[in-house]
Amino acid sequence: MTQILQELKTPQDVRKLTVRDLETLAAEVRSFMIKHVSKTGGHLAPSLGTVELTLALYHVFNFPTDKLVWDVGHQAYTHKILTGRRDRFATLRTKGGITGFPNRFESPYDAFGVGHASTAISAALGMALARDLDGKKNAVIAVLGDGALTGGEAFEGLNSAGDLGRNLIVILNDNGRSIDENVGAMSEYLSKLRLMPQYNRAKRDVEHLLKSIPHIGGKVYRTASAIKDGVRTALVPGGLFEEMGFRYLGPLDGHNLPLLVETLSQVRQMRGPILLHVHTKKGKGYLPAEQAPEKFHGIGCFDVKTGECPKKQGAPTYTAVFSEALQQLAAADQGIVAITAAMPSGTGLKAFGERFPDRCFDVGIAEEHAVTLAAGLAAAGKKPVVALYSTFAQRAYDQILHDVCLQKLPVVLALDRAGLVGQDGPTHHGVFDYSYLRPLPNMTVMAPKDEAELRDMLATALSLGTPVVLRYPRGRGVGVPLREGFSPLTVGRAEILRAQGSVALLAVGSMVPAAEQAAEQLEADGISARVANMRFIKPLDAELLLRWAHDEEVRVFVTIEENMLAGGFGSAVLETLADENALLPILRLGIGDTFVEQGTREELLALCGLTPQQIAARVEEFWKGLDD
Amino acid sequence: MTQILQELKTPQDVRKLTVRDLETLAAEVRSFMIKHVSKTGGHLAPSLGTVELTLALYHVFNFPTDKLVWDVGHQAYTHKILTGRRDRFATLRTKGGITGFPNRFESPYDAFGVGHASTAISAALGMALARDLDGKKNAVIAVLGDGALTGGEAFEGLNSAGDLGRNLIVILNDNGRSIDENVGAMSEYLSKLRLMPQYNRAKRDVEHLLKSIPHIGGKVYRTASAIKDGVRTALVPGGLFEEMGFRYLGPLDGHNLPLLVETLSQVRQMRGPILLHVHTKKGKGYLPAEQAPEKFHGIGCFDVKTGECPKKQGAPTYTAVFSEALQQLAAADQGIVAITAAMPSGTGLKAFGERFPDRCFDVGIAEEHAVTLAAGLAAAGKKPVVALYSTFAQRAYDQILHDVCLQKLPVVLALDRAGLVGQDGPTHHGVFDYSYLRPLPNMTVMAPKDEAELRDMLATALSLGTPVVLRYPRGRGVGVPLREGFSPLTVGRAEILRAQGSVALLAVGSMVPAAEQAAEQLEADGISARVANMRFIKPLDAELLLRWAHDEEVRVFVTIEENMLAGGFGSAVLETLADENALLPILRLGIGDTFVEQGTREELLALCGLTPQQIAARVEEFWKGLDD
Repeated sequence: MTQILQELKTPQDVRKLTVRDLETLAAEVRSFMIKHVSKTGGHLAPSLGTVELTLALYHVFNFPTDKLVWDVGHQAYTHKILTGRRDRFATLRTKGGITGFPNRFESPYDAFGVGHASTAISAALGMALARDLDGKKNAVIAVLGDGALTGGEAFEGLNSAGDLGRNLIVILNDNGRSIDENVGAMSEYLSKLRLMPQYNRAKRDVEHLLKSIPHIGGKVYRTASAIKDGVRTALVPGGLFEEMGFRYLGPLDGHNLPLLVETLSQVRQMRGPILLHVHTKKGKGYLPAEQAPEKFHGIGCFDVKTGECPKKQGAPTYTAVFSEALQQLAAADQGIVAITAAMPSGTGLKAFGERFPDRCFDVGIAEEHAVTLAAGLAAAGKKPVVALYSTFAQRAYDQILHDVCLQKLPVVLALDRAGLVGQDGPTHHGVFDYSYLRPLPNMTVMAPKDEAELRDMLATALSLGTPVVLRYPRGRGVGVPLREGFSPLTVGRAEILRAQGSVALLAVGSMVPAAEQAAEQLEADGISARVANMRFIKPLDAELLLRWAHDEEVRVFVTIEENMLAGGFGSAVLETLADENALLPILRLGIGDTFVEQGTREELLALCGLTPQQIAARVEEFWKGLDD
Repeated sequence: MTQILQELKTPQDVRKLTVRDLETLAAEVRSFMIKHVSKTGGHLAPSLGTVELTLALYHVFNFPTDKLVWDVGHQAYTHKILTGRRDRFATLRTKGGITGFPNRFESPYDAFGVGHASTAISAALGMALARDLDGKKNAVIAVLGDGALTGGEAFEGLNSAGDLGRNLIVILNDNGRSIDENVGAMSEYLSKLRLMPQYNRAKRDVEHLLKSIPHIGGKVYRTASAIKDGVRTALVPGGLFEEMGFRYLGPLDGHNLPLLVETLSQVRQMRGPILLHVHTKKGKGYLPAEQAPEKFHGIGCFDVKTGECPKKQGAPTYTAVFSEALQQLAAADQGIVAITAAMPSGTGLKAFGERFPDRCFDVGIAEEHAVTLAAGLAAAGKKPVVALYSTFAQRAYDQILHDVCLQKLPVVLALDRAGLVGQDGPTHHGVFDYSYLRPLPNMTVMAPKDEAELRDMLATALSLGTPVVLRYPRGRGVGVPLREGFSPLTVGRAEILRAQGSVALLAVGSMVPAAEQAAEQLEADGISARVANMRFIKPLDAELLLRWAHDEEVRVFVTIEENMLAGGFGSAVLETLADENALLPILRLGIGDTFVEQGTREELLALCGLTPQQIAARVEEFWKGLDD
């Protein structure tokens, strides 16, 4: 560790540094960050882009009295390093280690916990309102990216903040990207602003021109006055934000520390809602990240010298299998179109978009719009597939209910990263979807046991003509062979994997292979177990459930799911059996009433008691309990 | 019925009318609408504001080949009257009658079903994309109010539509209101645009000025050119929309039929995304509605001559009791603040805001922002109460999960209109909340059996310091006396209303009085029944459930809720009993796997089998089944 960074005891020490020192510190922070993230993995490129901005903020403001709210939070590593987490930075995103996002439980400097985009303006405005009620004077600052600005909630926040007129500083960290290239009209607008310095020159010239308009009274005067207003508005960039009630400043080079410090010092004195537009480069200061910012947005471990990640062996990812299957199906069916909310790479739609550019729509970080857009496409006869991460589908709950299910429109929601996602932790686990989707009428919910079944389920989903959710986990498939074609499945029909046994293991999705292994362990321990891959969470295979419930051999049902236990798959099984008055002892395995922390997927499955060994042990314990 | 309206056979007949005829027709439609809505009740004021706009649209465009998407849809009565539903208009919003919102199942002219705000641009854009893929040429039109424009999804739609550049007409029906006065920076911006005609005069003058700037080369030329661009932009109103990629036209008098017809005829020829800003008056043409548009936004029956509604006798509404209780609690606790999403009147916060103007925030139709704003206030030490309708809380699901529960912040969500809401129908029933809220860790969910308990529950909720949902039904309380003070409840503890009996009726919220009546009926029929008011859906009173499950007298559990059966309260009871291996026959009463239609609350409760008589009968049938 180098000199200045090592000597910082508290964040307040940054206030005492010279600007020259800050520049040295920026270089130190950068190499510190690259060194550590190369080992732990993490959101490197966003955090490299905000090193100078963060240092300037800590130089000018007085945190945590002043409040700093990061939007999404994947750009906050410098903030974490400055605020007491330098020495634990090697534990970033590991089980028990420091978290990848600002987190109120971790530090008083983390004013607001984040993970999902577009919340910062709203949260910061809440803090500003509270401050004013308490008669305090602290600054409140929200930092959000241009990607987050495409989310509707950010607009709602701007609209409300501009209206309420409180002292609030919004810093727009504009790097022209979400994870991939940013999209949308707002993005184009910001690009134009970036090219605006010419207007600043023009502005001086026009002032002369305006002064030459003679001062006259009456109607002509009003006209001239309107012209002056108009010209001024036109020549001050950021009119869009000004119209929303913000004072716009910028654009500013977000890597120029003297300029940042000077500007932030001025901003600190200003009143009302301020929007400071800062232009940064994602991955700044590390060439491989500058050249491939989407790769380094969230990355695993890599070689610092080359930027190369170790080649991983193994089965294709669920994402890759989905991508390939969707392209195959779309080649044969012109009606299929695809929608992503700023995640073409993450969801596997990038290749689809390259192959079918007219039929692929990236709408920005805008899940609500994505789902209603799909409903509109479906109402006009198309077969839209909306590929989202499960956790972000929560953003579109009302649209799934109100626009898709209520109208029984054939929208397929492909929910990637469902279940425990690993290092991103509790903000990102996709463990609520069975529970919130199951109550929706007209909805079909399915989950494949492996990547081959994912292909067949996608084909099935696209054939139904009604709303469907298909959810599959993060990471690699289980390594089964992939066939060429597609074999559509019967809706609501389970697959029996082991037909005999006293324990009936009912598993869905990722838990099916675990159930099969658990069954083998149970057999070895003298308890016979049958296994069903339920495939459909809705509609359930009630016929199978009742047949097994009435089978004299069966003494116990066990449900296994990578979802909350409250209202999930196991709950659906209970409901079905209770409604038929066919209840028997049932052990429901899944995620209890708690937010699951971060760690590897394997660590977290073990934490939740969902490894094959744990499943077998828990069944054995339950089994023994029945005899007591 | 008067002449022209009566003679219209198909919507296409409107295309053949003269503008003079349209003006006559407008008057006829208005009196037809007033006459009928005065008997059925309905969204009169919004629909009175769009009579001319709708007639002009049907005169100029060719529906349903052209597509018309109404946002929210409460302004679409003229559209309904023109498109085959005139003769059934007396059945508006009644059981089995025509619905209050556009509905794809009702008419091919209803291109997209609506009810919740801010979806129209997204849906229409989807239809435009589908049209272009199919090589068709039809127009696609979205009509949305200035209130709906405060919702984030509308911005997401604008941002995406401006980017994609398709032929799409967005008509901004600006009446300066949501249900109450509209709020937000965008609203102020629209107000400014309305005053813009002066700029049109100025524009002519400035053209002369610009022409006087000499044409010169090089840098000075570029400067002059930039000035010209800037001046033009400044003097064409609607720059904000232009920056978003739309061509802005307006503002236009939305009651001037010749102007509307002429402008729409021009718009029909234009390409790319168009935003047409139309200025209308809510309640137009019916003085009582013009003078009190919030009263006539959604109204019951009324006297056409006076605009007076028949005085209703009875208990105070839950809304009124909530309003009064919150004011009382806030008078004693400075930390309490309140937030509404454009519903100060509907949620009862209007009086709160008048009494505590500094502590009440109306953020517009922006539920996502409302909840995160509350989380920000809570993070800064306040005790925010967000008053929403249950159905609109669906819009903020991710914020409730990610910003409130994950951070365990003391935000109280007061969910009004929970359960079956009546005439507004399936888009507005608040019957999913138990199911989607129950899986959230750190959340407490409660529902009062009557208006007196609502007071105690609100006091309890504000004392917990953790996330709480309090949900209560639309309409009047049951008429119990209201005490002065507050008696906080023990979290997770049920109230036993009848302690003995073989049938254990477990009820929540609105179903508790029904359960008590059903118990009496059962006793009369020879089946003894005990009754618990469970109060807390989360955490459940597991101790009571187990005590009763192990009570030898108890043979049957019956759960009764005004919520979906999938994942709801009954499911929670099942889970608790199954986890303790204490299952016994259980009859779950609630709403099955279907969207419930419109009707009076009483009719719909009967439809769902939830009247006291039906509950008793269903229990008796189940009871008899046990002996078979």
